[in-house]
Amino acid sequence: MAVHTFTPTHYHRTMGSHTPVLHIAPGDSVITTTVDAWGLDAAEQKATEGGNPMTGPFYIEGAEPGDTLVVHLDRLTPSRLTGWGRSRLAANVVDPDVAAALPTENDLVYWVFDLQAGTASLRDPVGKLGRFVLPLKPMLGCFGVAPSDGQAISTATSGDYGGNMDYNGFIAGTTVYFPVFQAGALFHLGDGHAAQGDGEVCGTGIETSFEVQFTVDLLKGVRSGLPRGENADYIYTAGNARPLDQAMQHATTEMLAWLQQGYGYSFSEANLLIGYGVEYELGNMFDPAYTMICKLPKRLLAK
Amino acid sequence: MAVHTFTPTHYHRTMGSHTPVLHIAPGDSVITTTVDAWGLDAAEQKATEGGNPMTGPFYIEGAEPGDTLVVHLDRLTPSRLTGWGRSRLAANVVDPDVAAALPTENDLVYWVFDLQAGTASLRDPVGKLGRFVLPLKPMLGCFGVAPSDGQAISTATSGDYGGNMDYNGFIAGTTVYFPVFQAGALFHLGDGHAAQGDGEVCGTGIETSFEVQFTVDLLKGVRSGLPRGENADYIYTAGNARPLDQAMQHATTEMLAWLQQGYGYSFSEANLLIGYGVEYELGNMFDPAYTMICKLPKRLLAK
Amino acid sequence: MAVHTFTPTHYHRTMGSHTPVLHIAPGDSVITTTVDAWGLDAAEQKATEGGNPMTGPFYIEGAEPGDTLVVHLDRLTPSRLTGWGRSRLAANVVDPDVAAALPTENDLVYWVFDLQAGTASLRDPVGKLGRFVLPLKPMLGCFGVAPSDGQAISTATSGDYGGNMDYNGFIAGTTVYFPVFQAGALFHLGDGHAAQGDGEVCGTGIETSFEVQFTVDLLKGVRSGLPRGENADYIYTAGNARPLDQAMQHATTEMLAWLQQGYGYSFSEANLLIGYGVEYELGNMFDPAYTMICKLPKRLLAK
Amino acid sequence: MAVHTFTPTHYHRTMGSHTPVLHIAPGDSVITTTVDAWGLDAAEQKATEGGNPMTGPFYIEGAEPGDTLVVHLDRLTPSRLTGWGRSRLAANVVDPDVAAALPTENDLVYWVFDLQAGTASLRDPVGKLGRFVLPLKPMLGCFGVAPSDGQAISTATSGDYGGNMDYNGFIAGTTVYFPVFQAGALFHLGDGHAAQGDGEVCGTGIETSFEVQFTVDLLKGVRSGLPRGENADYIYTAGNARPLDQAMQHATTEMLAWLQQGYGYSFSEANLLIGYGVEYELGNMFDPAYTMICKLPKRLLAK
Repeated sequence: MAVHTFTPTHYHRTMGSHTPVLHIAPGDSVITTTVDAWGLDAAEQKATEGGNPMTGPFYIEGAEPGDTLVVHLDRLTPSRLTGWGRSRLAANVVDPDVAAALPTENDLVYWVFDLQAGTASLRDPVGKLGRFVLPLKPMLGCFGVAPSDGQAISTATSGDYGGNMDYNGFIAGTTVYFPVFQAGALFHLGDGHAAQGDGEVCGTGIETSFEVQFTVDLLKGVRSGLPRGENADYIYTAGNARPLDQAMQHATTEMLAWLQQGYGYSFSEANLLIGYGVEYELGNMFDPAYTMICKLPKRLLAK
Repeated sequence: MAVHTFTPTHYHRTMGSHTPVLHIAPGDSVITTTVDAWGLDAAEQKATEGGNPMTGPFYIEGAEPGDTLVVHLDRLTPSRLTGWGRSRLAANVVDPDVAAALPTENDLVYWVFDLQAGTASLRDPVGKLGRFVLPLKPMLGCFGVAPSDGQAISTATSGDYGGNMDYNGFIAGTTVYFPVFQAGALFHLGDGHAAQGDGEVCGTGIETSFEVQFTVDLLKGVRSGLPRGENADYIYTAGNARPLDQAMQHATTEMLAWLQQGYGYSFSEANLLIGYGVEYELGNMFDPAYTMICKLPKRLLAK
Repeated sequence: MAVHTFTPTHYHRTMGSHTPVLHIAPGDSVITTTVDAWGLDAAEQKATEGGNPMTGPFYIEGAEPGDTLVVHLDRLTPSRLTGWGRSRLAANVVDPDVAAALPTENDLVYWVFDLQAGTASLRDPVGKLGRFVLPLKPMLGCFGVAPSDGQAISTATSGDYGGNMDYNGFIAGTTVYFPVFQAGALFHLGDGHAAQGDGEVCGTGIETSFEVQFTVDLLKGVRSGLPRGENADYIYTAGNARPLDQAMQHATTEMLAWLQQGYGYSFSEANLLIGYGVEYELGNMFDPAYTMICKLPKRLLAK
Repeated sequence: MAVHTFTPTHYHRTMGSHTPVLHIAPGDSVITTTVDAWGLDAAEQKATEGGNPMTGPFYIEGAEPGDTLVVHLDRLTPSRLTGWGRSRLAANVVDPDVAAALPTENDLVYWVFDLQAGTASLRDPVGKLGRFVLPLKPMLGCFGVAPSDGQAISTATSGDYGGNMDYNGFIAGTTVYFPVFQAGALFHLGDGHAAQGDGEVCGTGIETSFEVQFTVDLLKGVRSGLPRGENADYIYTAGNARPLDQAMQHATTEMLAWLQQGYGYSFSEANLLIGYGVEYELGNMFDPAYTMICKLPKRLLAK
């Protein structure tokens, strides 16, 4: 049950079987930092090349293929008082003929945070929006484990190993589950967003560097197929694929499996539960793989 | 500001330029009934052939192409204490290889309502789910106006004219806006669901007959492109298309237009508002056209 | 076996259960004309409003729901020596960020035909392309029968009833099969293209008016699910849907059915035949519903 | 202009920056072998674990990021007289409700080759199909270079680096072009098919081991974005993505770029050329990324 403090000295722009930066045991916690998507740190200094650089990977002792890694997000806090993001809707979230009318000029906006008030607002007011004050809701954009088959996959995208899911529900207090594909699981994390709209439809959240505390655990011999999450009110699954239809199919299929294997429902019961009780959220519709979230309220689940 | 009571004697299984059943004026209300998707009425008698039969159409005096029809859903109440629905996930909402394992046997379940308690529950308990008690949340599955160009389109699907959107947010208290394509707008309604999971992923909600009260109004000369909605907390747009990607693009594009034309935001401001403030919901991923909802919280909108 | 000559006096911009312009018997031929997509006739005069106006419908005596209508395209000839088309790729056939760079200026080009030489060429030379001489390959862009359930559907799109499939294989010498949904089948035709690239990726073929001769027949009691075609070398099916994936699934599913019902293959044999012998073509990826063609060489089929 | 003979001793199941097995110079040829998708060699012995094992990678001297690698497929010959493949259509190429009816039993068929006659036929006759004789058309299913950013990506899928494209046009006589992402390009090859239907719709071609001869060259400073190909009659581009719509957009976008950069057409001319002259082929609709081919006949290209 150790609490490790880890200061990264290098970063990875792929999720892969990289040399672990730290070996930790189930039950251990880690306090560490992440740089933003451009590689800027808490001092807004370029710590590494941009493109969702990852802190880690962390080797979890005892984790083997076929297990499930448990990651509890204890604390996610911006490590500086500024963030940045794009200001235009991405070309793929509007009708193609409207995309043709999107300006191509410089499209960045800068945000400042008031941690006391729990808000982010535009550094420079924009017309009728003024400072456009939004609640801070810090989330991890990209995190997960080393993929199967010795793959190393760009942190631009996502898959069954997690990755760049850009779902604004991955906030502090959430427990996330990942299938283990490699010995030690090899947990990576980064790409913090101070807040993000559903779908990451402008191509970014409010991008910033983070201080993070997380705690790991292992479900030995428990097989999962995709990232899963849990908070006070919901269990959920994350389908990462393109198009949205397939992301949604993946998420629903994983929920069907979870209800049967993890909660003891029969196939018929699991169908009914999802059929009438399900909720969906749009993680992202911007990255190479999109993300759909399939949720079930815990109040519907049997004790 | 008349209140009309209308008892239907026939129904339509297309949204089209059918002979109006009643002429009403902007500001008028109508109290009427709808049969369920199979054509069963309040007495569970077959009133008409199944396939989402529509009550109407209602001719709104003064409505012309280029206007926007306003429909306030005043009251949606099941007109009987029973409903039915499918019990299996639809083949298109799970991974194709899992679809191959879905049973093909009879897949109906029957529900009973307790209007006092505001609940629906299974008539016949199912294993660990027992009676599977769900809150009643009555919604209209299929409603809208006559489509453009003299078309008559099956109530199985949806489009810019509304139709079978199967979005569980179309509940009492909601104001819905439709583009007017034909003189009189020709408003149709039906396919009530006592409750429905997101996405209508088992292919039905809890299907039943309804008593409905609605009030119409007109926005003369206000052009809209797709169905729009408004409740106490949100404004939203409905994109109806397949695949989900296109439904989402349609909804986002319509929101972009609405913010500029209806709320006076500049293009840049509208992009930022959606980019960081948007929420999405999945209407349905079952019908020939899927439905995605693009929402903005009213608290983010300028006064 | 009569040969009817029919001169249209009005046109329809929906495929629907419109009043027939002529009753014909199985075995009969019709010689008629079609206007171009803008409603221009052989004299380049505006004969009717634009939007793929249809000649017809023709009532085929004895055709009933559950039958299959046979249409042999005997002759398709441009009725004038000029055509027109768009000059830019459609926004939906390139990557969305490239779509944003597509010019929005006037984008029409005009073509002239040399029927002797069998060529179409640009009226006004364009840079390195010069006159850009292409072989004439006259095809019907939009044709089919009245849809199910009394629907009337815009000639912009397509479905199981045919419609705006824009497949450049629908040329003279082809036999096309349509499911019959309404008494008399109600055959419509129009939207001739003097030639067209695969996919109709600029949103048009070389649009012109046609002289057409076709011959009809009936397969009584033979049920088909989608448009089918046959020429000297191939049998094929047309899947009309969006996205391409679904169009392809529809076409493949219909071929699977045809091989079993029409050619007596077992399910296993039909799977093998398609699995190793199939070819696909892209009809259109521009219209609201896309079209994919699933083809089997006749040389692979059992006698 | 050396001709190297290389006998592999190990294989890779990812395309990645693996240690090169041989350094070769532009102009050099290599004669080597590939195992089949299961890892079976010319003697039908298991040479390595299955999953599209790759021979290579080959390091091409002088290749640097920003160059284009040229690979001429000189000779592709089955190295044994047997192959295997699946016998059922994949669940994702038929309508979802039909997928539910696909049998799940063992689904392999075995093929034997007659190199003299140039045919493949079923080892065991199947009903009306008998031996189902097909012409041999040996093609490479999976080949390409090391991906960008140090990635290592499973040979199950494909991308801008090539990979498991499963396009039946990659036959002897073809010249293929790949973007270079890593020093030396690092060319991998494998997954030979003795023949394959369009789309690889049953999930395999006729899988077998190969003898291969290829010759490499370099286009220094010539940037390409996706795999490109050329044969006697056509130039073409390969879009690898899911869904088909995006694969098609990628391929079309790359053709648009190639015509301008490589052939000197203006943007307008390139639009017209594609708009009216293009042909498409379906590579595969089975792998995680689908493949669409965008082709232009050389006869339409300016000298």
